[in-house]
Amino acid sequence: MSSEAFLRDFHHVATIGATAHDGVERQAATADDGRTRTWFAGWMRDAGRPVAVDGIGNMFGLYEWNPGASYVVVGSHLDSQPLAGRFDGAYGVLAAMHAAERIDERLAGAIPAYNLAVVNWFNEEGSRFQPSIMGSSVYTGLFDRDAMLDVTDPDGVTVRKALADIGFLGTDEAPSAASYAEIHIEQGRRLERESIDIGLVESSWYTQKLDIDVLGEQSHTGATAMADRHDALVAASRIVLMVHDVTEDFEPETLVSSVGQLFVEPNSPIVVARRVHLVADLRSGDPETVNAARAALVRQVEELARASSLTINVRDFDIRPIRYFREDGIALAARVTDRLGYSSRRLPTMAGHDSVALNTAVPAVMLFIPSVDGVSHCEREFSTDAAMVRGVDVLTDVAYELVHGALAGDDER
Amino acid sequence: MSSEAFLRDFHHVATIGATAHDGVERQAATADDGRTRTWFAGWMRDAGRPVAVDGIGNMFGLYEWNPGASYVVVGSHLDSQPLAGRFDGAYGVLAAMHAAERIDERLAGAIPAYNLAVVNWFNEEGSRFQPSIMGSSVYTGLFDRDAMLDVTDPDGVTVRKALADIGFLGTDEAPSAASYAEIHIEQGRRLERESIDIGLVESSWYTQKLDIDVLGEQSHTGATAMADRHDALVAASRIVLMVHDVTEDFEPETLVSSVGQLFVEPNSPIVVARRVHLVADLRSGDPETVNAARAALVRQVEELARASSLTINVRDFDIRPIRYFREDGIALAARVTDRLGYSSRRLPTMAGHDSVALNTAVPAVMLFIPSVDGVSHCEREFSTDAAMVRGVDVLTDVAYELVHGALAGDDER
Repeated sequence: MSSEAFLRDFHHVATIGATAHDGVERQAATADDGRTRTWFAGWMRDAGRPVAVDGIGNMFGLYEWNPGASYVVVGSHLDSQPLAGRFDGAYGVLAAMHAAERIDERLAGAIPAYNLAVVNWFNEEGSRFQPSIMGSSVYTGLFDRDAMLDVTDPDGVTVRKALADIGFLGTDEAPSAASYAEIHIEQGRRLERESIDIGLVESSWYTQKLDIDVLGEQSHTGATAMADRHDALVAASRIVLMVHDVTEDFEPETLVSSVGQLFVEPNSPIVVARRVHLVADLRSGDPETVNAARAALVRQVEELARASSLTINVRDFDIRPIRYFREDGIALAARVTDRLGYSSRRLPTMAGHDSVALNTAVPAVMLFIPSVDGVSHCEREFSTDAAMVRGVDVLTDVAYELVHGALAGDDER
Repeated sequence: MSSEAFLRDFHHVATIGATAHDGVERQAATADDGRTRTWFAGWMRDAGRPVAVDGIGNMFGLYEWNPGASYVVVGSHLDSQPLAGRFDGAYGVLAAMHAAERIDERLAGAIPAYNLAVVNWFNEEGSRFQPSIMGSSVYTGLFDRDAMLDVTDPDGVTVRKALADIGFLGTDEAPSAASYAEIHIEQGRRLERESIDIGLVESSWYTQKLDIDVLGEQSHTGATAMADRHDALVAASRIVLMVHDVTEDFEPETLVSSVGQLFVEPNSPIVVARRVHLVADLRSGDPETVNAARAALVRQVEELARASSLTINVRDFDIRPIRYFREDGIALAARVTDRLGYSSRRLPTMAGHDSVALNTAVPAVMLFIPSVDGVSHCEREFSTDAAMVRGVDVLTDVAYELVHGALAGDDER
């Protein structure tokens, strides 16, 4: 299929859940996530390909050329953050759909070593239902399916109910993966700065979160003397700044950390807050950097609790170790990119991806295309049509080699 | 009626909407607010007194001794903050109910100059529906009734619908007030520190709020370089601390200021916040102090916006000037207190009260009893039975003088 056909489909999908400023909002298992899923299933039906939906809402469009053989799985996710960009995830699914059709044309009836499945993973973003990277982590056995189906959103709705409500709590068996490939926007500005076409992802960053619960005492904002207050929001504000400022203790851009989520109780204009619950996110290419930052923060928070006579509970969670992608996978992608006349460089990913989960189970290749200004998870997220088209070319050739047996038959890392 | 009867009724009302740690939660026009209202109406019915409910949900238990004469209105409010104490507001309504019955007994059929109405004002607290002091401000014409009925809570429910749902959107005419008296817990520790029985409120503090909207840019917490972020929550945290620290520029306890309400968007653990909306509350006995603090904060926020390349909009609202209570009303309350053998002192109120609204329209007397530890708007709020009983005695005698014409017939302040 042509590049024009890919661009037409890509820009069409961006109209589903479209926001006022060129973004999309399709949080996991919402009505708009359901609409992209229905579109995906219809596209596969029109292409004559059966669709399997598994018990955690992952969708697979099946290209079965070699009955009984296992599958090269290629794709990403169609869900999004709130008020998000139209590229994150969707680009990878659309690229995989068109790569699959091109490979089918190129095969012209020949039978390769493996079949191919185009995947739309459930809930990569983790904004409505936590943790993120949910569908692919259940697929690879990192997370328990029943535990994930019981996860609730802030309104108390379970994953089970939300998926059933949109008609995508499936019962099909998922195809067995022989290998995996994914392409995604970089969400950083390294490729753009160096005018490089394709990023070859060599590892994921070490990440961890801190769940921080600040327990003060509720009182009247007007009638309570300043000295008598135990203001949980004042303490929480100091913690937000600690989490931000701790990055200054390390080399620039070796550590990112931030607080994105913060709830105030009771959150009334004339009541001093009794409780603030917040989540800090720390990431680095070096686990020691995260550990050092965490230790500094825990020490500072303990001092703050003592100085302000508050109880502050800090809990580590969602610790994700560095995962290295296979050297032969990186070499394969580099070779393909080079053959197509495109430039490439190796780089780590600071964001999590479904490929990081898949990489724990099967050989996985992860590719990036440049992001304009490096911004993502916002409506201003952007990549050019030309960059996207180059990425589809590379993904097609990587997947073509995979269905012919590249990376198979050994466990080299 | 006896002090024991008052205490029995007071402690019974505290069981409606009771929380785990001796507090109550009865936010305006919720089901539990409805239950206290039904209890109030039933109590008046048992006492043989008609109840009028006006078009903003104020309830009046009517003691009509002199048909055609206007009313001394006495009371407070039965609504509460979330997870609040059981004294704030409820004490004043229960004290007024028992004062009314005692006066009726004392009159023994004699006809005084005025009638008496025991009032339960709607939505004094303003936690669910803003602004606070709503029912009494509509009664005195400070707020427009239709505008207040259109106010919505965070779920979009209007005051009109919420009152109708609990059956208290009335159509009765409110009684015409000749004067007003209210008793309340101090919510500070001045009376307790000096072992004084009764506070004679001479003025309300100057208060204003600042609505602050911090507009950053949403981005990925993992993939966005620290230098590329426009984090609305980091800036908002600096503002929370500015609002707290500005009090240090003034004499201790001459200014209180705080942020009690703060909303983060999109509030996802892995997204840098695009917007934080917060409300700061500034109060002082001296308007110049509030103005100076406000000017300092606006200047600091402008600097922060410039330094962080964010847009921060600051808007003044809910400005409430100092209101002075009448000298003859303070003198009346001092005389009555003295006659009963209780100690008293004059003091301002830092918190707002229904009496401040009433005082703009008719002669009003405002009394305080001591608060243990000075805390309020929390479950730990406490006043002793003995202190409450003394307050009922004082309120009874003040209201007795008012129904006999004290403070009537002139506008002296």
